[in-house]
Amino acid sequence: MRVLFVGDIVGRPGRKALQKFLPKVRKEYGPFDFVIANVENAAGGFGITQKILDELLAVGIDCMTSGNHIWDKKEGVSLLDMEPRLLRPANYPPGCPGRWCMTLDGEAGRLVVLNLIGRTFMFDVDCPFRRADEILQDVAAPVLVDFHAEATSEKRALALYLDGRISALLGTHTHVATADEEILDGGTAFITDVGMTGGHAGVIGMQKDSVISRFLTAMPARFEACNEDLRLNGACVDIDASSGKALSIRRISVREGCETPNE
Amino acid sequence: MRVLFVGDIVGRPGRKALQKFLPKVRKEYGPFDFVIANVENAAGGFGITQKILDELLAVGIDCMTSGNHIWDKKEGVSLLDMEPRLLRPANYPPGCPGRWCMTLDGEAGRLVVLNLIGRTFMFDVDCPFRRADEILQDVAAPVLVDFHAEATSEKRALALYLDGRISALLGTHTHVATADEEILDGGTAFITDVGMTGGHAGVIGMQKDSVISRFLTAMPARFEACNEDLRLNGACVDIDASSGKALSIRRISVREGCETPNE
Amino acid sequence: MRVLFVGDIVGRPGRKALQKFLPKVRKEYGPFDFVIANVENAAGGFGITQKILDELLAVGIDCMTSGNHIWDKKEGVSLLDMEPRLLRPANYPPGCPGRWCMTLDGEAGRLVVLNLIGRTFMFDVDCPFRRADEILQDVAAPVLVDFHAEATSEKRALALYLDGRISALLGTHTHVATADEEILDGGTAFITDVGMTGGHAGVIGMQKDSVISRFLTAMPARFEACNEDLRLNGACVDIDASSGKALSIRRISVREGCETPNE
Amino acid sequence: MRVLFVGDIVGRPGRKALQKFLPKVRKEYGPFDFVIANVENAAGGFGITQKILDELLAVGIDCMTSGNHIWDKKEGVSLLDMEPRLLRPANYPPGCPGRWCMTLDGEAGRLVVLNLIGRTFMFDVDCPFRRADEILQDVAAPVLVDFHAEATSEKRALALYLDGRISALLGTHTHVATADEEILDGGTAFITDVGMTGGHAGVIGMQKDSVISRFLTAMPARFEACNEDLRLNGACVDIDASSGKALSIRRISVREGCETPNE
Ligand SMILES: [Fe+2]
Ligand SMILES: [Fe+2]
Ligand SMILES: [Fe+2]
Ligand SMILES: [Fe+2]
Ligand SMILES: [Fe+2]
Ligand SMILES: [Fe+2]
Ligand SMILES: [Fe+2]
Ligand SMILES: [Fe+2]
Repeated sequence: MRVLFVGDIVGRPGRKALQKFLPKVRKEYGPFDFVIANVENAAGGFGITQKILDELLAVGIDCMTSGNHIWDKKEGVSLLDMEPRLLRPANYPPGCPGRWCMTLDGEAGRLVVLNLIGRTFMFDVDCPFRRADEILQDVAAPVLVDFHAEATSEKRALALYLDGRISALLGTHTHVATADEEILDGGTAFITDVGMTGGHAGVIGMQKDSVISRFLTAMPARFEACNEDLRLNGACVDIDASSGKALSIRRISVREGCETPNE
Repeated sequence: MRVLFVGDIVGRPGRKALQKFLPKVRKEYGPFDFVIANVENAAGGFGITQKILDELLAVGIDCMTSGNHIWDKKEGVSLLDMEPRLLRPANYPPGCPGRWCMTLDGEAGRLVVLNLIGRTFMFDVDCPFRRADEILQDVAAPVLVDFHAEATSEKRALALYLDGRISALLGTHTHVATADEEILDGGTAFITDVGMTGGHAGVIGMQKDSVISRFLTAMPARFEACNEDLRLNGACVDIDASSGKALSIRRISVREGCETPNE
Repeated sequence: MRVLFVGDIVGRPGRKALQKFLPKVRKEYGPFDFVIANVENAAGGFGITQKILDELLAVGIDCMTSGNHIWDKKEGVSLLDMEPRLLRPANYPPGCPGRWCMTLDGEAGRLVVLNLIGRTFMFDVDCPFRRADEILQDVAAPVLVDFHAEATSEKRALALYLDGRISALLGTHTHVATADEEILDGGTAFITDVGMTGGHAGVIGMQKDSVISRFLTAMPARFEACNEDLRLNGACVDIDASSGKALSIRRISVREGCETPNE
Repeated sequence: MRVLFVGDIVGRPGRKALQKFLPKVRKEYGPFDFVIANVENAAGGFGITQKILDELLAVGIDCMTSGNHIWDKKEGVSLLDMEPRLLRPANYPPGCPGRWCMTLDGEAGRLVVLNLIGRTFMFDVDCPFRRADEILQDVAAPVLVDFHAEATSEKRALALYLDGRISALLGTHTHVATADEEILDGGTAFITDVGMTGGHAGVIGMQKDSVISRFLTAMPARFEACNEDLRLNGACVDIDASSGKALSIRRISVREGCETPNE
């Protein structure tokens, strides 16, 4: 079973990068049984809307994960209870709207997508370690986790904690791809962060001037998505559907005029 | 001018990895005009000592940078005012012991090494952006910056802010190498994080059990350096000595039985 | 010289409390040479507007201090460069709009009002300790500092650091009055926090339901000013105009039907 | 039923203040059915030991609560499973040693003491709101909660959330007493923080020099308990044993040569 996971799609440039480079990724790395993408920043960097969700489904995204920014747009929040293909992290407290798991069925078998979020340097939500324990108890199929977190330590610690119980733990949220993709001892594919999909000329997907200005002045600033140096970042994971073990993980970064991805 | 920068050396396993793999790195990527390493974690993960400093000098480190952990051992702090080859971040407030800049002279020319630290998710120190402005005013030679910081946004923002004024900004502190090395428009080599040098089987250089336990219980835990899967992580930067522009940046990750680095 | 300092005025209920109880406070504790108020939350809890500023001046506020929320409304930010009676913390970095000091002249003499902000649990601004040193070098008159900060330790540490150099350091920002008002050894009046002016039935000036809901769900929530249990909180400080020493500090809390303040 | 709650006892000066002033407090406010104290800082400011625990029991403490510092001394941690009169916050994750509840029985009836800890600006533990819900389900007797937390908003939000279900929520941790003691609408006594017991001349119980130095340099510093201006801070709560409603709450602050407490 071959899965493509696309890192945080940031604004219109992110959607453009997805549309532009997905065919190339399919050709080079596919065909894929399932395509999953983190969409927390899909609408101008902040949340999602119905229109954008439809646009992403049309491109061929099978399942959408998210993170802290999913709450940014009211319209996006209201989608959470209606659209089963849109997930929010499972360890937000009970009472929050939305689903956190999706079962994908295809010719190659079944894959469960689980979304979790970290706490270090982030927000006061439930423990992602114990929440994962709880959820995995009831799941038989191979599981792919999008762990949306800031701290490298929390991400790797959770991956090692779940190693052998899930097929893959792919990190998101920092918007910068890490170079540490590997198959852990227990058979779980891991990467600290797959990076983001959008304009890479700025600062983590946003235009650089307002971000730099914010660091210089400590005043709040309005950020807009960066439109230069579009790239699709993500990872391609091969999973043995019967054992649930990952067979391989490859980091993907495709940009304009760069025929061989990641070079 | 060719420079090797070695990411945070963590404990005895980090020093072992350095000794073991440095010859291989020299052969594959060298010869180097200068070798620089971040040593904030060299003594058991926390600070540095005279003995370890001597050991690192003996291996051929020309300049040692550091970060938040440099204050962990009293002996290491007392070295700061005595050893000109040991730096601490320049934007710790006035009154802190130690130097933050070192001028390296070699056949290929002069290189100034500057150490800075970030603030986001870290500590209340002086603004790294303005501190860099201040220091760079008085420096004519090419400058290589070790920016020791947590947040991807702060690292890239500072790199873009200094682009064209420095030869390289290499990130440290997260202990996980990022896959975003590049030459920015103004000629500055950049990578969000070069990763760490030490045992990679655990969590960011420490044995996994106590780190996982800390996430599970929120109780303080004692961490010990991980001794498995030793790797030397860093970056190799070529700088045009007359213009100060970076010509290339290559990410380096060497481990046991892995003849071709980084594959 | 007698000064009234009014704690963070929160929204319309805060302005109402000010209008309603200021006469009573004047009668009980006055007459005052100067009336100063923190206005960072005056407009619905978030920033300030021209109209509200005029309203506060009309009630008799001589000088307005602020804090992190001063940037919340564009209109309020634009006032900073135009209105000399409106201050923002002095240790925001250079380049931020606005003033941070105001000199008040009256029959009893001259008083300089200085606004500073803390960093612990807050934002990455310049060091309030060194910024105070810098500013105080050039000031001869008695100085009253509004130190807008979260951590009790940072507030008391700055007060002790400046003790003998300023007439008073009055804390704001937590919106809860502390019971530790005193004259420090060097003659500086100090209180960790004077509390806030507005509706006290909710949570630090906001209606309780959305605040509780935020703690329960970790989802962002829209907060509205609480309109029940209006109180004016602040402090009254007597200063010897020639020596600049504080003679007394009294905590003030006036509410409906509570003729004797603070009981 | 009359209860005395004593705020964080800091080091030897805190224990001295307790021994010295408790008789005076008993005389002025007592007799007490139960005396409870927060002891997280009892051993030099960091944790507790068997010897100090015995000392506190000998003075007449019936129940000891704690907070984040309870883990500072190994000896103190090992006491948690052995000493039923020593509590740690209930919302540390399962797997942590220790108890979080104690039932006190006296002539005036039964009182359950519950210890909880906040998360805002603190550590990643379980939700104190939901943990309280869980525990209170099974408790019939009046409950007094020590909520050890930093943020004023989290403290008041939890108090309002539990109002009518518990007899009192008394805040600890900031070491500065607040002036907002009151009986909430549902009959729960509340104060944001009762303050600390120890030397008040320094910074929240520690000698001022090293604390100021830490703020000035951002370097770690060793803190020692302040021995000047000893005070016992706490609160006295009267509870109707049959209804569990609080009848009164009085803030207490007793120091040398100050016959009338709190004036
Ligand atoms: Fe995110
Ligand atoms: Fe994101
Ligand atoms: Fe570090
Ligand atoms: Fe490090
Ligand atoms: Fe504020
Ligand atoms: Fe405020
Ligand atoms: Fe505490
Ligand atoms: Fe404490």
